[in-house]
Amino acid sequence: MASLFTRIINGEIPCHRVGEDDRYLAFLDIAPLREGHALVVPKLEVDRFFDLPPDLLAGMMPFAQELAKRIQRAVPCDRIGVCVIGLEVPHAHVHLIPLDRMSDMDFSRPKLKLSQEELAALAERIRKA
Amino acid sequence: MASLFTRIINGEIPCHRVGEDDRYLAFLDIAPLREGHALVVPKLEVDRFFDLPPDLLAGMMPFAQELAKRIQRAVPCDRIGVCVIGLEVPHAHVHLIPLDRMSDMDFSRPKLKLSQEELAALAERIRKA
Repeated sequence: MASLFTRIINGEIPCHRVGEDDRYLAFLDIAPLREGHALVVPKLEVDRFFDLPPDLLAGMMPFAQELAKRIQRAVPCDRIGVCVIGLEVPHAHVHLIPLDRMSDMDFSRPKLKLSQEELAALAERIRKA
Repeated sequence: MASLFTRIINGEIPCHRVGEDDRYLAFLDIAPLREGHALVVPKLEVDRFFDLPPDLLAGMMPFAQELAKRIQRAVPCDRIGVCVIGLEVPHAHVHLIPLDRMSDMDFSRPKLKLSQEELAALAERIRKA
């Protein structure tokens, strides 16, 4: 059974894409901690981040760097935080989250509710930033 | 004024070292969320993670991978989580945290109090794992 993220990568489930190359896909989290909260996933389906092949791990942060700069231009903030937890979807993924204070990274907080239209407009702003 | 982490890298402030190469140093967090909570810092002092040169970003996760496997052998857990917040010390650093549940990554929880002897013994176990 393909993971939720593999089904997104294969286009079976829609997403608000903000970046892609041959090895990684990035899209907006639909239950974000802050506007601009995005996920970077390798196209190779592996559960645990540190079980990824070293070359795929090595490429992930430079890919995220370029995206982080675009997110920060679209969503002004002090910096972009990074989080890998991975207990919910068994497909390695990196959260990129705009940060101004510690609590912006607190996963126990209620998530924002953004409409599909709001998410689509935000993804467009990030892609063009 | 050198950052706290540069002073640790230079040996002016002691640490419980768990890994090192020519570009990165890793040591135990002295106020850990869980036993085995470690920090990976580039020896180059740059405040924001995503302002690091891309080659230094690229090397950081493969370096962390090798350490994460040793932490997990010394401190049994489901996986090792990753977090970059960086609002407190202006020198890019990656938290590696043993995870079994979401709350293991909650930075608002009270930190563990481990003695210097306990931290030294734990660092030794991780280095040898």
